[in-house]
Amino acid sequence: MKREELKSILNKVKSGEIEPEEAEEMIRLEPFVDLGYARPDTHRELTQGAAEVIYGEGKSAAQIAGIAQALLGAGQERVLITRLAAQKADELSNSLELEYFDEALIGLIGGLPEPVGDGKVAVVTGGTSDCHVAEEAALTAEALGSRVQRIYDVGVAGIHRLLANAGDLSQANAVIAVAGMEGALASVVGGLVDCPVIAVPTSVGYGASFHGVAALLAMLNSCASGVSVVNIDNGYGAGYLANMINQRTGKER
Amino acid sequence: MKREELKSILNKVKSGEIEPEEAEEMIRLEPFVDLGYARPDTHRELTQGAAEVIYGEGKSAAQIAGIAQALLGAGQERVLITRLAAQKADELSNSLELEYFDEALIGLIGGLPEPVGDGKVAVVTGGTSDCHVAEEAALTAEALGSRVQRIYDVGVAGIHRLLANAGDLSQANAVIAVAGMEGALASVVGGLVDCPVIAVPTSVGYGASFHGVAALLAMLNSCASGVSVVNIDNGYGAGYLANMINQRTGKER
Amino acid sequence: MKREELKSILNKVKSGEIEPEEAEEMIRLEPFVDLGYARPDTHRELTQGAAEVIYGEGKSAAQIAGIAQALLGAGQERVLITRLAAQKADELSNSLELEYFDEALIGLIGGLPEPVGDGKVAVVTGGTSDCHVAEEAALTAEALGSRVQRIYDVGVAGIHRLLANAGDLSQANAVIAVAGMEGALASVVGGLVDCPVIAVPTSVGYGASFHGVAALLAMLNSCASGVSVVNIDNGYGAGYLANMINQRTGKER
Amino acid sequence: MKREELKSILNKVKSGEIEPEEAEEMIRLEPFVDLGYARPDTHRELTQGAAEVIYGEGKSAAQIAGIAQALLGAGQERVLITRLAAQKADELSNSLELEYFDEALIGLIGGLPEPVGDGKVAVVTGGTSDCHVAEEAALTAEALGSRVQRIYDVGVAGIHRLLANAGDLSQANAVIAVAGMEGALASVVGGLVDCPVIAVPTSVGYGASFHGVAALLAMLNSCASGVSVVNIDNGYGAGYLANMINQRTGKER
Amino acid sequence: MKREELKSILNKVKSGEIEPEEAEEMIRLEPFVDLGYARPDTHRELTQGAAEVIYGEGKSAAQIAGIAQALLGAGQERVLITRLAAQKADELSNSLELEYFDEALIGLIGGLPEPVGDGKVAVVTGGTSDCHVAEEAALTAEALGSRVQRIYDVGVAGIHRLLANAGDLSQANAVIAVAGMEGALASVVGGLVDCPVIAVPTSVGYGASFHGVAALLAMLNSCASGVSVVNIDNGYGAGYLANMINQRTGKER
Amino acid sequence: MKREELKSILNKVKSGEIEPEEAEEMIRLEPFVDLGYARPDTHRELTQGAAEVIYGEGKSAAQIAGIAQALLGAGQERVLITRLAAQKADELSNSLELEYFDEALIGLIGGLPEPVGDGKVAVVTGGTSDCHVAEEAALTAEALGSRVQRIYDVGVAGIHRLLANAGDLSQANAVIAVAGMEGALASVVGGLVDCPVIAVPTSVGYGASFHGVAALLAMLNSCASGVSVVNIDNGYGAGYLANMINQRTGKER
Amino acid sequence: MKREELKSILNKVKSGEIEPEEAEEMIRLEPFVDLGYARPDTHRELTQGAAEVIYGEGKSAAQIAGIAQALLGAGQERVLITRLAAQKADELSNSLELEYFDEALIGLIGGLPEPVGDGKVAVVTGGTSDCHVAEEAALTAEALGSRVQRIYDVGVAGIHRLLANAGDLSQANAVIAVAGMEGALASVVGGLVDCPVIAVPTSVGYGASFHGVAALLAMLNSCASGVSVVNIDNGYGAGYLANMINQRTGKER
Amino acid sequence: MKREELKSILNKVKSGEIEPEEAEEMIRLEPFVDLGYARPDTHRELTQGAAEVIYGEGKSAAQIAGIAQALLGAGQERVLITRLAAQKADELSNSLELEYFDEALIGLIGGLPEPVGDGKVAVVTGGTSDCHVAEEAALTAEALGSRVQRIYDVGVAGIHRLLANAGDLSQANAVIAVAGMEGALASVVGGLVDCPVIAVPTSVGYGASFHGVAALLAMLNSCASGVSVVNIDNGYGAGYLANMINQRTGKER
Repeated sequence: MKREELKSILNKVKSGEIEPEEAEEMIRLEPFVDLGYARPDTHRELTQGAAEVIYGEGKSAAQIAGIAQALLGAGQERVLITRLAAQKADELSNSLELEYFDEALIGLIGGLPEPVGDGKVAVVTGGTSDCHVAEEAALTAEALGSRVQRIYDVGVAGIHRLLANAGDLSQANAVIAVAGMEGALASVVGGLVDCPVIAVPTSVGYGASFHGVAALLAMLNSCASGVSVVNIDNGYGAGYLANMINQRTGKER
Repeated sequence: MKREELKSILNKVKSGEIEPEEAEEMIRLEPFVDLGYARPDTHRELTQGAAEVIYGEGKSAAQIAGIAQALLGAGQERVLITRLAAQKADELSNSLELEYFDEALIGLIGGLPEPVGDGKVAVVTGGTSDCHVAEEAALTAEALGSRVQRIYDVGVAGIHRLLANAGDLSQANAVIAVAGMEGALASVVGGLVDCPVIAVPTSVGYGASFHGVAALLAMLNSCASGVSVVNIDNGYGAGYLANMINQRTGKER
Repeated sequence: MKREELKSILNKVKSGEIEPEEAEEMIRLEPFVDLGYARPDTHRELTQGAAEVIYGEGKSAAQIAGIAQALLGAGQERVLITRLAAQKADELSNSLELEYFDEALIGLIGGLPEPVGDGKVAVVTGGTSDCHVAEEAALTAEALGSRVQRIYDVGVAGIHRLLANAGDLSQANAVIAVAGMEGALASVVGGLVDCPVIAVPTSVGYGASFHGVAALLAMLNSCASGVSVVNIDNGYGAGYLANMINQRTGKER
Repeated sequence: MKREELKSILNKVKSGEIEPEEAEEMIRLEPFVDLGYARPDTHRELTQGAAEVIYGEGKSAAQIAGIAQALLGAGQERVLITRLAAQKADELSNSLELEYFDEALIGLIGGLPEPVGDGKVAVVTGGTSDCHVAEEAALTAEALGSRVQRIYDVGVAGIHRLLANAGDLSQANAVIAVAGMEGALASVVGGLVDCPVIAVPTSVGYGASFHGVAALLAMLNSCASGVSVVNIDNGYGAGYLANMINQRTGKER
Repeated sequence: MKREELKSILNKVKSGEIEPEEAEEMIRLEPFVDLGYARPDTHRELTQGAAEVIYGEGKSAAQIAGIAQALLGAGQERVLITRLAAQKADELSNSLELEYFDEALIGLIGGLPEPVGDGKVAVVTGGTSDCHVAEEAALTAEALGSRVQRIYDVGVAGIHRLLANAGDLSQANAVIAVAGMEGALASVVGGLVDCPVIAVPTSVGYGASFHGVAALLAMLNSCASGVSVVNIDNGYGAGYLANMINQRTGKER
Repeated sequence: MKREELKSILNKVKSGEIEPEEAEEMIRLEPFVDLGYARPDTHRELTQGAAEVIYGEGKSAAQIAGIAQALLGAGQERVLITRLAAQKADELSNSLELEYFDEALIGLIGGLPEPVGDGKVAVVTGGTSDCHVAEEAALTAEALGSRVQRIYDVGVAGIHRLLANAGDLSQANAVIAVAGMEGALASVVGGLVDCPVIAVPTSVGYGASFHGVAALLAMLNSCASGVSVVNIDNGYGAGYLANMINQRTGKER
Repeated sequence: MKREELKSILNKVKSGEIEPEEAEEMIRLEPFVDLGYARPDTHRELTQGAAEVIYGEGKSAAQIAGIAQALLGAGQERVLITRLAAQKADELSNSLELEYFDEALIGLIGGLPEPVGDGKVAVVTGGTSDCHVAEEAALTAEALGSRVQRIYDVGVAGIHRLLANAGDLSQANAVIAVAGMEGALASVVGGLVDCPVIAVPTSVGYGASFHGVAALLAMLNSCASGVSVVNIDNGYGAGYLANMINQRTGKER
Repeated sequence: MKREELKSILNKVKSGEIEPEEAEEMIRLEPFVDLGYARPDTHRELTQGAAEVIYGEGKSAAQIAGIAQALLGAGQERVLITRLAAQKADELSNSLELEYFDEALIGLIGGLPEPVGDGKVAVVTGGTSDCHVAEEAALTAEALGSRVQRIYDVGVAGIHRLLANAGDLSQANAVIAVAGMEGALASVVGGLVDCPVIAVPTSVGYGASFHGVAALLAMLNSCASGVSVVNIDNGYGAGYLANMINQRTGKER
């Protein structure tokens, strides 16, 4: 949204030609940059409360660089790039100041911010192999301003490992439960806490895990209340949502 | 949990035999009533922040009555019974003071409470046929203490109907998006608001909707951030979670 | 197997014409009665260690009666009929002395035997609605000679209910874990005991439970060792196997 | 169809031996060239209104060259080769004058024609990653004679990007909506225009997108009228059909 | 849209305050009636080129009557109600002048119109059992103004039955191919004509037809060009689209 | 095909105008009766070697009667009606001389013929519940002229029951193996005989049998050679094919 | 089976100790060679009417060589090896006289035999890409003694290409119909011939072909009689069965 | 569990403060080592009767080494590592004394133990390609202390190969039946023995085997009693369970 446009809208409000509410919608619903191959939303913080994030899979390094520069040029302070292969990260490093987290496959421009407020997000995993999805979730939440506690390899077949961490879990504003195979972690965690649990099925497993379907179904059918589910391996989505819940807890509208 | 048990635990804390944190876990993790066919959790408000709810499907009226009485006897103020067929509701009315909501298939003992706080939950549906699931969600949230705004039949094939309600949606602390068929509602709503969106796929549709699978998959793959998903037709789960988020927004820990 | 046939085989053994091992196979592999519509195995205790059982579904009352009489006529002491609808049980009662267990849909001729040995089988369920499958399992094991302990409605979303029974579980020779929805019970139980756990997914649930598929997949992917799975709702199969394991525990070959 | 054959048929018509209608069917239903491994249809423009196209996948460069030469030899002016890997395109360039479009994986002999008439086809995509399928569609339509307008990266989670192009969309004779993930684009577009919308699900996505199945189901269940669907990633089929509709709009029979 | 609103918009255009194109969008995107349970689109002919249709499944007779009256009240000349059970049709007949087509499960208020133009739509079926879906398609197209030719029971296992009708098919502006079981009809028809073929899989069949999935997949994979697919049993969608194509053929923009 | 038409064709052959081979094709590819709702093939014995059969499911008694009379009127000696519900059979009995086989749901006009030749078809089933599908197969083969031997309830879990019939099986020209549940019968039978085995999966079973899918997949993956598969519960198809193979065995072309 | 064993059996028959029928079963059911990793059946021609074939996939070259030599050593004249990768074929050529057919991935020791009798098998394909599966079928049938006619690329979207070959098809004793994508070929062919049609779905296609599932389902649901199906890409199975049918046609038992 | 902790518990028991049963649970439910990326259970022999096993897939060589050393350090005598790729085994060999079994992909530290007791486990496979899964099962059972008998390549299509081993099978305390493709082996074996049969579906096969799903479904639907199933290719799980059953047979509680 160019400055002139905004001025014009506000002038109309002043002259009474349009109502303030209409102006708000106009401002929220308008602006993006047309790069031909992409239309990044330079106004996203207004509509969504968090800046535009780049999904790196299926985009060339050049396309990613183009979008990142458009966002930075429009004044966005920090750019998060998910599903960024190591090789593309190398290429991007030539033109952009990029921090790369290889387990999470995340690139970050602008550095991790200080956590906002006192609340925290807890990230738990069923096993060691689920950790890269967990890291995507944890880093996303951190990049958006949340404090994160990691509790890994506490799968339900050794229930004592999870119970030993019940105290920590009950301090969180949101818990992200990451598990493959039978995905039972979400249900047990859901029964231990009184905050929202975001379940992330992972594609970890073999045979009848069907690349995460078994865990996905288990989580959708969780008999615990307060549990909702995101796509298989979608650490980013879980981290985004957990941060949103965490930030809004204790914040008056 | 009987009074003596509690007293014993607290005495041990006083004498230093156990630490307060241990005592908290003991108290939170213990009590339920064993009815033989069921073990309702009479202590659930402590562990989960909301009282035990009865899932009516697959239980006889006698079993439901038994569980309800156990909960009321343990001091629970209000009992919500979901998936309660009209005929069982009739039977229950003989022995219990039950309010019955037929579109939502919900029975309620103890009446709807006054909403807590100023926040609200919005419930939107794609079509008229999704309304009974939406009502299950709305009534659950209301029974747990949330103010609810209903916005029905605003499916994306007539996008102007949804946009006309964008202002209302942006005021909510949580939005429940209920849709069958192609389930696209969640994505469009997710792009309009900055609060969590809980997507509820419904079994409305025919042919390749596969009883809600098409909507479920669409919602799991939503390209909007802040969207998570519950089971097909799970209005209760969505209402429970939306209320949890709504109640915790603006509440310091 | 008619007496003459057996005599002939044994004579051949005596005369050295065939080896004893061959004779054993001949005797084990031969006999059944041809009723036209069915060939019940009157020799099953020799080959399988347990008498022939009638699967009632899809057979008429007349066919069931015919098979039962063939088995009784061949000297079988007790006949178990599974998946027996109440109405067929009524019809059978006219001609046979049948005990009927309606929750388990089981008919029994010859009465429940005294348990053999000191061992026991434990049957646990996730919820109240899983009980009819659990009863099919429990009664099957009892009819075959096992002592059975029932522990119902101890689903993992309230993990304290299960942990409160951990002592009982650790006394069993085999545990049958019966659960629908997310089927997580098997994994948690599997981590608590050191005997075989037989997981029975049930069709309890809705939406993405897909009539038991979610629970089935979860159980097949259990991260606990010592867990194996039978078909959805197959209480009989689990009871049969649990009894077999229970009977053989502590029995020298 | 050799000249003699055609003459013979027409002579029979003249002599009254066969009716003109019969002759038309005979002519339309006959001719192809038998190359052993393939039978390209050298008469396709008569039966189908558009020349034979070569599907490059699973054919060797030699086979493709053979078919192309058979078609050119039979007088076909332009040959379109889809799903043509870059390496095969290189090989073909030695013997044929081939233009290669690498994003669309399309090879073209004979060059792009001038658009026929004033109508146009619009191609919209949900995201940047859908563009190679969109290009297959766009180039196919162009190769067959349509004017094409590309509107890329206008997914529904940022609905303002799509609405900003509503005017352009309403000018098209046919719209091709290309989207992966939740595939909601087709429904929203279908609600904005009054011409046929051809929905192309793409395999873009991960986890529960199941290589395009989520988008496919969403599109089949579209609540907008005027929407039909082609196979996952089938840009060619959509471009072919869109051109057919575009060409026939405004053409008297 | 009330008259005053329209007047206001047009005045702004006249005064140059808004451009005519903007006004067009404003007018097209606005109006619907809010009935609480439904928001029928009273302006749909402007946006979509065809009046609002009521999907009868899952709506009560009272709801259908309410929507129909809202549409008639807003000046819509003719109301089509699909998936209308015979009993609801009876109820509606008391308050509305309804014509009922029982094979198609269609109710029509306002009568069938005279066909517009000379073009026609052909509807072909694979078997006798597919006819009720075919009738839904045929009547929809007729109600929207198309001339329809029915060619039933011409499945591909007796290919001569279809070839005998090839002449008729080649005269149509659009062909609707309705088939269950293996759904091969669409491919063969697609190879015989040069106009769009809309394939409608039906749930006719058993076993591995999976309620229409076999036919759906076959049609999506059709090797004939110009074929697109709608949902299983979606006769209405096919009829709507076929009419749209038919009406636009030979119509200058 | 009317007599005059045939005469005309043959005259043309005589005069040398058309070749005998062309005439054969003309005669084979032409005739059917158009009843509006159906086009029964009155010439099917020429093209397919067996008369037209009526699939009763989804057709009204009146429609069935109409088709049957058309076939009888065209000189067909015997009419087989499959999937014929008992009630429709009753209705048909009023106007037609119909023999009804209730286990097989088959109606027959014209009586069972004497078997042709000495060969036979064997029909084996895994269990008692598979018998109605087996009877559909057996009666179809008998109605078309084959001698049939039934061997029922010889499932592989009691392999001695099957081996006891190995001699009979090895005498057959074709074996139909009918089984639900795990469908293993086809593989074992396939290893015992040297004639074609036609495997028929049945929908007998529960849970993970998925209405015959488990048996279908097992049969498709049979490690025995000479086994092919028809649709779930398709006794008719198996009987038709088995008869075809049986009749052609020992018949010179 | 060693000579001594056979002699012993026959002596017992002579002496009347066992009946000839029993002896036949003994001889047919016994012999194989135990190689540790495999037990090839050196007596298969007696039980199955065709010699043992080696499935090359998942076996090392050394294992294949071991099995082949065991079979040749037991007197088998010709050894067919299917799914044999080119590299393994090279390795085998060092120790065995192997003819390799690369399109079919078949290795043959002992050479192709002269066809037995006058009958033939026809192999038709829908497209060029189906040819390698077709070649596996054709070569298998030839290796077992059948004359084979190949008719490739006659898919149903250009129905005239198939009809032009109808005469050839009607001369075959068995037809193998090989097709991917929508798999409609089997139904059309099934309607044109009066001999068994063996349908082979192929994994050719993309998107919703699901690696051959679409074709498989279409073929299982074929509305033509006389069609049965083998596994996806199972050219060998089809060739084996077609040869069996072909050889037995015109052969008295 | 540190020594002090254990001492403290035992002191409390001595002083009567806690009951011995409570102490047992405390000891059994506590200890693990937190490595950050993993929490191996150093006390597993107490809770589960067998030491902790490392699942090598998805863990780096360094992580595996870390876990192995933690277990050895805690006094575990033998460490089994499953799904261990050859290259990682090489790396581990530098720091650990590892025996590597390449067909089974198993690494073993501490050597194979002498078998405990006289009982044995039998492992049977359907084909040669199933052997690597069978070896994983066999070696696991051996590493845990069982005597194992291997009987490979006895698939049901050559039933005599299996029957020839019936004597051996009937001597086992548990049978592991490993098969891909149609998975029929489990049912036939289940009918021959009177001990538990653990069925392991393998991903061996192609087309409609769907990577083991066909075998999995067949085994879940086994009509033989005493059969239960583990995940596709889960040789480890089967070996673990078979050993557990074998060890407990003939052992008094």
